[in-house]
Order: sequence, then structure tokens, then C-alpha cells
Amino acid sequence: MLRALVLQSDFGISDGAVSAMHGVANSVDQQLSIYDLTHDIPPYNIWEGSYRLWQTMSYWKEGTVFVSVVDPGVGSTRRSIGVQTGSGHYIITPDNGTLTHIKRTEGIVAAREIDERTNRLPRSGESYTFHGRDVYAYTGARLASGAITFKEVGPELDPDSLEQLPVKEPEIRNGKVLGIIDILDIRFGNLWTNIPRDFFNQIGVQYGETLKVRILHNSQEVYHNSMTFGRSFADTHKGEPLVYVNSLDNLAVAINQGSFAKAYNIRTGSNWDVQFEK
Amino acid sequence: MLRALVLQSDFGISDGAVSAMHGVANSVDQQLSIYDLTHDIPPYNIWEGSYRLWQTMSYWKEGTVFVSVVDPGVGSTRRSIGVQTGSGHYIITPDNGTLTHIKRTEGIVAAREIDERTNRLPRSGESYTFHGRDVYAYTGARLASGAITFKEVGPELDPDSLEQLPVKEPEIRNGKVLGIIDILDIRFGNLWTNIPRDFFNQIGVQYGETLKVRILHNSQEVYHNSMTFGRSFADTHKGEPLVYVNSLDNLAVAINQGSFAKAYNIRTGSNWDVQFEK
Amino acid sequence: MLRALVLQSDFGISDGAVSAMHGVANSVDQQLSIYDLTHDIPPYNIWEGSYRLWQTMSYWKEGTVFVSVVDPGVGSTRRSIGVQTGSGHYIITPDNGTLTHIKRTEGIVAAREIDERTNRLPRSGESYTFHGRDVYAYTGARLASGAITFKEVGPELDPDSLEQLPVKEPEIRNGKVLGIIDILDIRFGNLWTNIPRDFFNQIGVQYGETLKVRILHNSQEVYHNSMTFGRSFADTHKGEPLVYVNSLDNLAVAINQGSFAKAYNIRTGSNWDVQFEK
Repeated sequence: MLRALVLQSDFGISDGAVSAMHGVANSVDQQLSIYDLTHDIPPYNIWEGSYRLWQTMSYWKEGTVFVSVVDPGVGSTRRSIGVQTGSGHYIITPDNGTLTHIKRTEGIVAAREIDERTNRLPRSGESYTFHGRDVYAYTGARLASGAITFKEVGPELDPDSLEQLPVKEPEIRNGKVLGIIDILDIRFGNLWTNIPRDFFNQIGVQYGETLKVRILHNSQEVYHNSMTFGRSFADTHKGEPLVYVNSLDNLAVAINQGSFAKAYNIRTGSNWDVQFEK
Repeated sequence: MLRALVLQSDFGISDGAVSAMHGVANSVDQQLSIYDLTHDIPPYNIWEGSYRLWQTMSYWKEGTVFVSVVDPGVGSTRRSIGVQTGSGHYIITPDNGTLTHIKRTEGIVAAREIDERTNRLPRSGESYTFHGRDVYAYTGARLASGAITFKEVGPELDPDSLEQLPVKEPEIRNGKVLGIIDILDIRFGNLWTNIPRDFFNQIGVQYGETLKVRILHNSQEVYHNSMTFGRSFADTHKGEPLVYVNSLDNLAVAINQGSFAKAYNIRTGSNWDVQFEK
Repeated sequence: MLRALVLQSDFGISDGAVSAMHGVANSVDQQLSIYDLTHDIPPYNIWEGSYRLWQTMSYWKEGTVFVSVVDPGVGSTRRSIGVQTGSGHYIITPDNGTLTHIKRTEGIVAAREIDERTNRLPRSGESYTFHGRDVYAYTGARLASGAITFKEVGPELDPDSLEQLPVKEPEIRNGKVLGIIDILDIRFGNLWTNIPRDFFNQIGVQYGETLKVRILHNSQEVYHNSMTFGRSFADTHKGEPLVYVNSLDNLAVAINQGSFAKAYNIRTGSNWDVQFEK
């Protein structure tokens, strides 16, 4: 049976780039099921590409092949790789940190460097700027369709040699739960932290309790207020802030039917700290 | 034969939410054909979700399964339902008014409350905030693939018990045709009214005639001018306004190659009245 | 075997228009593979529609059927056509210049006018404004599925009778390479010219050399500076401008990890000249 092929990039869907990748994949095998994760990763934002892979991969069947192309180093010496995850999925991507989240959660059990002598679109010419089409979509489609095995991607690599972005760990200190704003739930402006739900169990926070929430940017306080820990948005009034458990079982902060990120001009990354206290 | 599965939401396509739903559906059955209606319903806008279902459903084959998730009440006591329409389509959705248009046009012939003991993604954990993935996409995919019958969605409901949004009816009064701006043809800024084309037949308006058009917001006049009733945009000059019959056989107002909505700052809803007079 | 169907339009994906086209195509044949090229062509921009077809078509398998609907003249006397290209692809479109690039590159080997007596969605009513759904998606799906042959699209036309947009040719004059800004690489703000890479071979420009670059809008200079001809972005520092060969083997101008188009407020078309000199 054919495996699904799932494509992600920072190309947007307003021009022909994604369709060229679809065409390359469809040309490899007309029976292939091709899906788009998102093509709206902010340009060059490897962190967000890594996060979105982690956010979605476990909901796809074992054996599904992901292609992720956020590739500011295209044309440099950065390697092109294919990996097999601990969860039995495959990812084809430049080796630039795109696997940061997946390596920590699912693990990488095998890695191979793409051999472009065999795994590059024939006649892909003198362009050095679109490996998403010429190398990644092509190789991903060939792997998903069974035209090549994982071994035929290219020579074996040590999974520990793969690039990783720096990561800041959440912690419990003096009864406070500390973490960072990992990413936004873009559409709704909710803040998703890197703090697992279980940390609240450890300090004994129950649904319905009121918490002090502080947010700091480069150690400067930008928000300090109290809010309820709710099971869902329905536990609050419209316009009220709340702490909740998001769809990845991490803690998140929101305004019911408003945008927390816009309201307080909050962004994401390791210089955006968040603290919860009973 | 497998039925198509068509997904709609207000999640946007910039993060991983839609792909997680695709993955859940694909995991149910790899042969399933999955389509997206739109995921760009404005956040929490149930009315627009209801309208888009009506706008598209009849162009899909009988038996197609729609999943629509505009769900401001996720985690509350609002019911999760599956319905069969008079046209032979299926819709899986929260019971919050999403079926307002379909109930009036196609009718609801059977309704069932989703039984989450069987129709919920296994291992979907402690999150109470993403029923789109854990309940609706999962149940829709199982129905579309034949893994469950419509009866197996859950216990039967009275279709008349389903939530409905308030609706304002168009009418003919003193030779004037009265209605509201139901929705925008977003990309082109055209105003789509709730007035069927047939009302012009009743007051004897022919293509090529000039009409007086008034638009009122909360009873305040915001537009008053004359324009032609044209068969299509090609009947007017660039920049000229016109009344025409839209792709749903309702009356609409536009500027040829311009945006009427932007030009006069016009929005939609039952407090946006429109009047046509010969 | 079924051919893929690839849809393009200026409809956007925020309302139900594209899904109505998907539904019409899926209703013709449930086994059909339906893809979207892009639906984000700027409204009425036939030139960009023509360009995106050219940018992607050769990456799709021979026999693939494209439907392109940028149709400011809907409802006028403009013809609806189906063509076969020199590369063995099919395109269904209004005859308004959408085939300008393809005719020059792949050539049109056969053309037919769509006979709406047979090739129009049954029951498509009194609307004269949505041929994308009622004529083009329907006919494209029927051709892709084999329900009709290319001959059955309708009566034969002379390919030389098809509408063409005016085109400005690149040239070499006094050692300068002259062309226009054909289009933007939207997401990244790169300028794509109409000048083939080979012109640099003719005047002897090598990778790594520094070039003078001038950009003029309506003959007024808007940019004049020197930059490197790089194999890829990796050959420059962040924020540095460069000339490179794009994924269509044409010359392009960019700022590494910045937007050239935004930085200098540059747009596209035959009144945007670009000059390269050693």
C-alpha cells in the first residue's frame, strides 16, 4: 500500500512553488496521496517548522512520509537528509534544526544523507535555489511510493550528528512553574507554552483555581495578572483570560474569543518567559 | 465506494490544526478522499460557516460527508451532532446554529448526537479544546469510510431540537424589494443579498433596467444610488456598479473590477438592509 | 488511467467558490485526483495566471488537465476554450490571454471552443457569473476522467486565433542585458526577470562576478547599485543583495533573507525595466 506524502514549507500558496512540488510528486506516482501540512511557516523560521512537524506527526499513520522545506541555507554545504523516527514516520528535510522537536519527543532511529546522484529530479538544470522541488519533494515521493527504500535515500548518518536548535527546558522552582512561549495558536492569538500539563499536577493546581501569571520579554515584565485554570474556554466569560491545557497537553494562555498575543503584543521564543504561581 | 470527506473550520491553514485533522481522517482509512471547503471562516463566525455549507453542498455528490467546526462553545454542554440532509448529504458539527441555512433549504431528515464513548479518537487525552480533531474529523472519517453507519453516530435526536440562528426574511413591500446583506463575495468585495432572483420577476424587473439601490446600517442610509440590472459584469464599464444574479441565484451588488464593500465600508448581517426599487 | 486535474483561479480560498468547483469535479468522477495550483492570483490579473501556468506545467505528467479561471470578461462574448500544448498537457480556460506564456514556450498544437450545449453543468441555472464552476471545472473534470475526448470539447479553432497579451522581449545591447521584472517570487520579495540565464553566458558573466544593476519604472531610475552574481543565497551575507538564477532558469534579483520588492517598492510589468552590466 502507498504511504501518504505530507508537504510543509515556508513558500506560501500564492505562487506556483507548491504546485511544482505537487507535480513532481504526482509524476513519480499518480496513485500517491499528497497532503499539505502548511506552507505558511514564516520565511526562514526553522523553529516553527520543527514545531509544526511535532504538532501533527503523531496524528498520521505510521509510515507516512513528511517533506519539510524551510531552507535558508539552500545552496550552502548544509546536508539534505532523510530520517526515520521512533514513531515509524519518515521526514525528508535540510539538516538545519528542523528535527529539533521530533528528536526530543519521538526520537530519530535512523538517518541518511540524500544522494543527489540518484535522488534528484532529472533535468533539474542549473538552478541551485529550489531543492524543495528538485530534491526533497522528489525523494519524498519516491520513498512514499516505494520506488526507493529508506536505505536507498543515501549513505547512513549518525542521528546524533544532526543539527539541533537550542532548547530551554521548563522547570519548577520555589513553587513556581517556569517556561517559555513556544509558539502561537496563530488564528486565535493564544500563547502555547513549553510546559507540560503534568507540572500543574506536581504543584497541585486543580481546574477552577486562580493563578498568578507573569510574562517577561528579555527579563522585562510585560504582563502580570491573575486568571482561572479552566478546562476549556466555556469555563470563562467572553473577553476573560484563562490558562488551559492545549491540544498537545501543554499549558496555554488565552483570552476567550479575543487574541492574547495581540492584546499584549506578545511573540514567541526563548526570550519570552512565562511563570505560573498559585 | 468511499464517500468524499469535506472539512470546514475557522482554524486557518497557517499552523498544524488542519493537518492534524487530515491525519486523523487518513489514519481511519488511507483510501478516503479528503477535501477542504475553507478553513478561513472568521473566528467564531457560525453564520458564515452555515452559509458556506449551503453555498457548496449541492455541488457535491449525494452521500458526501461534511465536517464543519466553528466551535466557540467547545468544552461547554453544547451537543456534538451528525445529521442527514434532505439532499442526502451528511454533516458532522457542533450543534450551535451551523445548520441554519441547510435546514431551511435542503432540510434535515435525521439527526443523531455523537456518542463519544465510541466516536472519539483513542488516546485523545486530557485536552478539552480540540474536538475538531478528536471528535468531528474522526467521526466524519469513520462515517465516510463506512467504518460506522449513520445510526452508529449515536442516539437519535429530533431535528427540530437543533439550534438555529435568527433569520430575517426578504420581502416585497410597496413595490420595493427588501432584504439584507447576507454575506460578502470576499475576494471581489461584492455584496450578496438574501433576495432570490425571482423577486425581480415578481415586480417585473428586466435585464438592462435601471434600479434605485439603498443600503442602510442600523436604519442609517449609507448608500443611495441608481445602477443597472446586468446579466453579468461584462454588461457594464470598469468601475461601474451593477445589480446581478449571483452563483446561488440571489441578487448581488458589485462594482465591476472594484470592491463595493471596501468602497462604501459595508459589512454583513441582519442590521445591514438593502432595498431595490424600479 | 485517470489524469490529474489541476485548478487555478483568482477566487481566493476564503469562501465556497473553490469548493464548489471541487464538488463539481468530484461529482463527475469520484476517482479523480484534484489539485490546486493556486487560487491567489490577484483579481483579474491574467498575466500572472499565464505566468503561473508556465511556471508549473512542465513539472506535471503529460496528459494532466489544467483549469485556469481568471475571467474579468465572464458573461461577455469572450470564448471558452480547451487546448492541447506541445508538451502534451491540456488547459481549459477563457480565451483572454491566459495562454500567453505557454504558447511561446510549449506551443499550442490544437484548440477547441467549448460547446456549452454539452459541456455545461446540468441545472446550472440563470447565473451568468460563475463559469469557473459551471463550465470550466465541469469540462476539465470530464476531460481528465475520460468522460469526453479532447475532440468532444467542441469545434476546432485555429491556435493562432487565440488571444495573446503583449510581451516585451529581453535583449543584449551595447554589452548590457536588458529585460523587465516579469513577476515576483511573492513570499520572499524576489524579482524574477524575463531574461534567460544564457544571456549571461553570451556576455561572459561568471558566478562570483560583480554586476551593475539598474531598475527603472516608466524610464525613471528607482535602483542603481552593484551586487554579486551568486550560485545561491548561501554565497552572500544576510541582508546582502544578489543576482541569481531562479528555478525557471531566468535571472532574478534578491536580498538574502530580506524582501527586495518591499525594500525598494518594486512591482512588475512591462514598465519595470531591469539592466545588468559587467
